[in-house]
Amino acid sequence: MTPADRGALPADRGALPADRGALPAPPSAGGPAQEDGTFGERFLARAGTLGRLCVGMDPHAGILEAWGLPVTVDGLREFSRICVDAFADTACVVKPQVAFYEAFGSAGIAVLEDALAALRTAGTLVIADAKRGDIGSTMAGYATAWLGEDSPLRADAVTVSPYLGLGSLDPVLEVGERTARGVIVLAATSNPSGPQFQRLGTGEHGTGPTVAQTVVDSVSALNSAHVRHGRAGNVGVVVGATVTDPPVLDAVGGMVLMPGVGAQGGSAADVARIAGGAARLTSPSMSRSILSAGPDTGALRRAVLGSSAEFPPAV
Amino acid sequence: MTPADRGALPADRGALPADRGALPAPPSAGGPAQEDGTFGERFLARAGTLGRLCVGMDPHAGILEAWGLPVTVDGLREFSRICVDAFADTACVVKPQVAFYEAFGSAGIAVLEDALAALRTAGTLVIADAKRGDIGSTMAGYATAWLGEDSPLRADAVTVSPYLGLGSLDPVLEVGERTARGVIVLAATSNPSGPQFQRLGTGEHGTGPTVAQTVVDSVSALNSAHVRHGRAGNVGVVVGATVTDPPVLDAVGGMVLMPGVGAQGGSAADVARIAGGAARLTSPSMSRSILSAGPDTGALRRAVLGSSAEFPPAV
Repeated sequence: MTPADRGALPADRGALPADRGALPAPPSAGGPAQEDGTFGERFLARAGTLGRLCVGMDPHAGILEAWGLPVTVDGLREFSRICVDAFADTACVVKPQVAFYEAFGSAGIAVLEDALAALRTAGTLVIADAKRGDIGSTMAGYATAWLGEDSPLRADAVTVSPYLGLGSLDPVLEVGERTARGVIVLAATSNPSGPQFQRLGTGEHGTGPTVAQTVVDSVSALNSAHVRHGRAGNVGVVVGATVTDPPVLDAVGGMVLMPGVGAQGGSAADVARIAGGAARLTSPSMSRSILSAGPDTGALRRAVLGSSAEFPPAV
Repeated sequence: MTPADRGALPADRGALPADRGALPAPPSAGGPAQEDGTFGERFLARAGTLGRLCVGMDPHAGILEAWGLPVTVDGLREFSRICVDAFADTACVVKPQVAFYEAFGSAGIAVLEDALAALRTAGTLVIADAKRGDIGSTMAGYATAWLGEDSPLRADAVTVSPYLGLGSLDPVLEVGERTARGVIVLAATSNPSGPQFQRLGTGEHGTGPTVAQTVVDSVSALNSAHVRHGRAGNVGVVVGATVTDPPVLDAVGGMVLMPGVGAQGGSAADVARIAGGAARLTSPSMSRSILSAGPDTGALRRAVLGSSAEFPPAV
């Protein structure tokens, strides 16, 4: 690599893998890393025994206080220790929310590293909810941080944001394919202003698929080489459980992370309706309704098991 | 705050400040923090003596190697030390690219904290290029990390991404107004796939303003209370120097961060053309063409001064 700042906007021109501004090409599947299974296959395997629930680790000030913990790095560490104890062998997927660790600076990130290491040792499937999005070597930097083999922050998957176009995600998608780790792309979120851009029509006069559907269709194309071999791929999407006019997910071919379930209003019926033909790949995500059972580890475990029963493995 | 996971998707419903899914209301201006000037005013003051150039600190592997540094935390630290020495009193704005620090985990973030502290001591204007984007308490977590008064990562401004809708940015905008720090929103980027979503039309049949223009118009509204009092506001936009069909920036009322200048193809004429009536608020950003002069501190300083002369204070 030359000392080019290919990570600065708009430096991804000419960078490899190329940012094509169009549907990314399907990756060539196979290779050693895939022998242990894609991220999608590892999700399906774990969901087969634990159900499909994803549990969020969201250590905002309110939950630390509710658990009788100080709003400090020590409180963050104790919260994380309790969550690892309670969720590592009960939840199909555990999803730490990176912002709440980052709010404490490098000391908070160090706590997250320890939590990720403990979850890794336990064999838990972990999504780092980071929603990163950049281009070129900068996007590659984020890929190294969250999916790199030697990174202390490595997780099984990371969430990413496509405002810079789907081609901007190529560097992280490439690392995901190489390491059989997941890249989960924001598609449709159910916050009030979510539809502002996500539901716009593409193409001439906006008559083409919505932005959210375009994201899903691109992810489907990225997973297609794996799907042809009868397995789920490494790439997924985020679609909220209370989205109106959700994208069609039937052919997504990878994990659907679906927040907004439980205390946030989404029901099991909503999840089933939106997931459609992708039900078996859909992981409904809960945070508040689980964490409110804490800080008692036993109560947290029971909350996970109870909610997981609502989302058994789907056929 | 209750132990609600208002940060998880789609938990920002009902959170305050509300995510309205529409143009954010102009903030009430004034207040103690504004006595030292908004972020926009501090940019104008510094640009008045140093010119408008923003210099990127992008410690990717290629530049570390080109500077004869190891691709390790030690190399990252030495790169950052040299940059602080060379840029702190020569560049109008310094912009560390967070991804390259995050790639080294908490140890890398600690190096960034030290660099930010040194730049703060020197009185340099700093933009943390983080492109964060989330909702509710999660977005507030990022605001705390990058703009919070007590955060070891605090900078004068942070870049954010609007894929979740402009209303999702309310928590960071609120912190920016309160602390007179900057929030710089991605609008139009000049990577090849940038236009995929950014140039879509809003409104009926896509005949309304583009997504990028909608971002600019919202930022203009957010700055309007300050502009009415004759000062630039705290909110800015990112618009690439090689964007085709760029948004109209005349009324933006806050900083325009314009990457893609120099080695990346954008000329001073491009900057002037795209900036239009916002020329005085526009900070062209260079990384590669400056960093390639390193690692000699004197050569780096000369590179900054030479390029800064191309972008003098504008009337």
